[in-house]
Amino acid sequence: MTTLDEALALIKRGSEEILVEEELLAKLKEGRPLRIKAGFDPTAPDLHLGHTVLINKLRQFQELGHEVLFLIGDFTAMIGDPTGKSATRPPLTRDQVISNAQTYEHQIFKILDREKTTVLFNSSWMNAMDSAELIQLAARHTVARMLERDDFSKRYTGGQPIAIHEFLYPLIQGYDSVAMKADVELGGTDQKFNLLVGRQLQESFGQKPQTVLTMPILEGLDGVQKMSKSLNNYIGINDVADEQFGKLMSISDELMWRYFELLSFRSLGEIEGFKTEIAAGRNPRDIKFLLGEELVDRFHGAGEGGKARDNFIARFQKGAMPEEMSELTLESGGEGLGVVSILSQAALVSSNSEAMRMIQQGAVRIDGERIADAKLKIAAHTTHIYQVGKRRFAKITLK
Amino acid sequence: MTTLDEALALIKRGSEEILVEEELLAKLKEGRPLRIKAGFDPTAPDLHLGHTVLINKLRQFQELGHEVLFLIGDFTAMIGDPTGKSATRPPLTRDQVISNAQTYEHQIFKILDREKTTVLFNSSWMNAMDSAELIQLAARHTVARMLERDDFSKRYTGGQPIAIHEFLYPLIQGYDSVAMKADVELGGTDQKFNLLVGRQLQESFGQKPQTVLTMPILEGLDGVQKMSKSLNNYIGINDVADEQFGKLMSISDELMWRYFELLSFRSLGEIEGFKTEIAAGRNPRDIKFLLGEELVDRFHGAGEGGKARDNFIARFQKGAMPEEMSELTLESGGEGLGVVSILSQAALVSSNSEAMRMIQQGAVRIDGERIADAKLKIAAHTTHIYQVGKRRFAKITLK
Repeated sequence: MTTLDEALALIKRGSEEILVEEELLAKLKEGRPLRIKAGFDPTAPDLHLGHTVLINKLRQFQELGHEVLFLIGDFTAMIGDPTGKSATRPPLTRDQVISNAQTYEHQIFKILDREKTTVLFNSSWMNAMDSAELIQLAARHTVARMLERDDFSKRYTGGQPIAIHEFLYPLIQGYDSVAMKADVELGGTDQKFNLLVGRQLQESFGQKPQTVLTMPILEGLDGVQKMSKSLNNYIGINDVADEQFGKLMSISDELMWRYFELLSFRSLGEIEGFKTEIAAGRNPRDIKFLLGEELVDRFHGAGEGGKARDNFIARFQKGAMPEEMSELTLESGGEGLGVVSILSQAALVSSNSEAMRMIQQGAVRIDGERIADAKLKIAAHTTHIYQVGKRRFAKITLK
Repeated sequence: MTTLDEALALIKRGSEEILVEEELLAKLKEGRPLRIKAGFDPTAPDLHLGHTVLINKLRQFQELGHEVLFLIGDFTAMIGDPTGKSATRPPLTRDQVISNAQTYEHQIFKILDREKTTVLFNSSWMNAMDSAELIQLAARHTVARMLERDDFSKRYTGGQPIAIHEFLYPLIQGYDSVAMKADVELGGTDQKFNLLVGRQLQESFGQKPQTVLTMPILEGLDGVQKMSKSLNNYIGINDVADEQFGKLMSISDELMWRYFELLSFRSLGEIEGFKTEIAAGRNPRDIKFLLGEELVDRFHGAGEGGKARDNFIARFQKGAMPEEMSELTLESGGEGLGVVSILSQAALVSSNSEAMRMIQQGAVRIDGERIADAKLKIAAHTTHIYQVGKRRFAKITLK
């Protein structure tokens, strides 16, 4: 049995803010399974570790006996961008929504307990809402409060247009909480305003307002910018095991602790133990291995983490890779750099022509993998271990 | 046959603004019956002369061969005030809407040609609109442009709440023009913003934008404030003939010309002729009689105006009422005054006790009618002719 204090500690782990903690405590004391809501956009079902921060928290609620309501916000996605301004976001068809939902399920059930998860679509209740009901919903919030939202306020004062329907979306998102009778809603810190609209609408519909729990946005492999596909600093849930493991090995020690807190299911006590061991002289790489193994196991099945670790060690020709190597950052203006230029700037070679010759000879490896193309371009915001011959190593981050 | 110039002159008579006149001209040149829209609130079907300014203009369009679309905005009235703040505006039932519509028809067909009038209800298309369509409608307008509307802007900067659904109502009103394919929309000057939303939405739906024609707000009997029931300075369409006639006789000569322009169907040429006659010495009262007769005929049937005039003259004991009498204004702080106090302040009596005695003797008349109650209170913002005995007269306005 978990005590109330233990439950609260697990819920608070890694979280940014809980509004209102006293209310949450009262709900936990009721002893019933709480309804934990999290909403997801059906247009981007390709999840990375950044998305799993929230899903992990859902999983922790499940471990405490609560029920997860995984909401797919298909209603607005099926409307598309009605301003017609964004050609990149055409409306989704019903088939696409269903297919995206299946992709989601395939990914989230690597983390969540299928028995304690209900997947919902907000089109279920929004398609049935007529315009009179939507007007009555809109009557429950004011223009001034909506304009307090950070992005709206910036656009309004900056003279950038806000279409009126954009004021309706937070209301619909909030109404989802009413329709779902959510006890708790989870979201990123950037969602706080919308989550609070849900609280307010529930109160206005005579429900007990949901507790809002925000989770931080996960930093990408560079440790600075948020993890995102477009910045190419991410680890995808569907990435192959070796790639996931290799990328995790490239992160800084500082970022490793952050990932432990937000991505690992090891207890905080265990993690503190690791810190003590390192302070006593243990190689941080060994601990990083544990993180990599846990995450690869999660997404590829028990035992796969160990295999990925072994492959990683083999790639780096066990014993040949130094425990310590120089680390440096090169400026690429966000554009990325050619591998020849990187090797040259990092002084791993004496000239561009040496770089090209070494590549031709098969003597250049990136993260242990031999490269053959001298024109290979490396993306910005990535960190890799570059190796020339047997002895020259550098861990290089591109900015 | 009316020439284009004559048609335009009739349309422009008394109007405040036409947006855009060139477009209207082009439409008139097409030679087809234009679709002339005017929207009315179904909650207040008791019309007064102020409302008829717009209806008269519709009638003029009918005389030019166009089709009037008399729109009853029942959709929002059936939603009621969704904020629940106003206890005085509960939602209307379908039965009330139908009954109010009948009341409207009974009144407007005293002015409009039934054959060239279609009565429409916006619930016909709005009830069929689902929330997705309403969202798409809301996407066609921006928050910034909506906040430019005078009353919104004042409330926003003044920190008074604007509920979000209030932004939807002008869009619905504008969408009515789309659904109705209106060529021209008429409204009071206070409706200009909403009428322009209609133009913009029609364009955004690929229709030719409607011409917006605004009519001024009619002044009440006091000649200063707008005619309204609550200010008690109005003449109701359903008022009895003698009351209508008597009230019209109480207006100032200046206001009479205003009423001729906006309420009479006499040509502007005829009206100019009256001015010439008065300048040449004719009693303005005779001309005022003509206005009163025309309007009473309109609302009570041909010949009724003449009867009301005769009754009026009889009441004032033909010959006894002076052609000229003193006119004065008394301050009542908007509260009204007792008749005794009025007679006394106007020096029609030498004391309050004389006033009471004269009333008891039946020697006091208001607008020719004997009064018996010394405690009678006269409302503010009214003008009446007070008479004591046979020779003491005064036309007194209460402020």
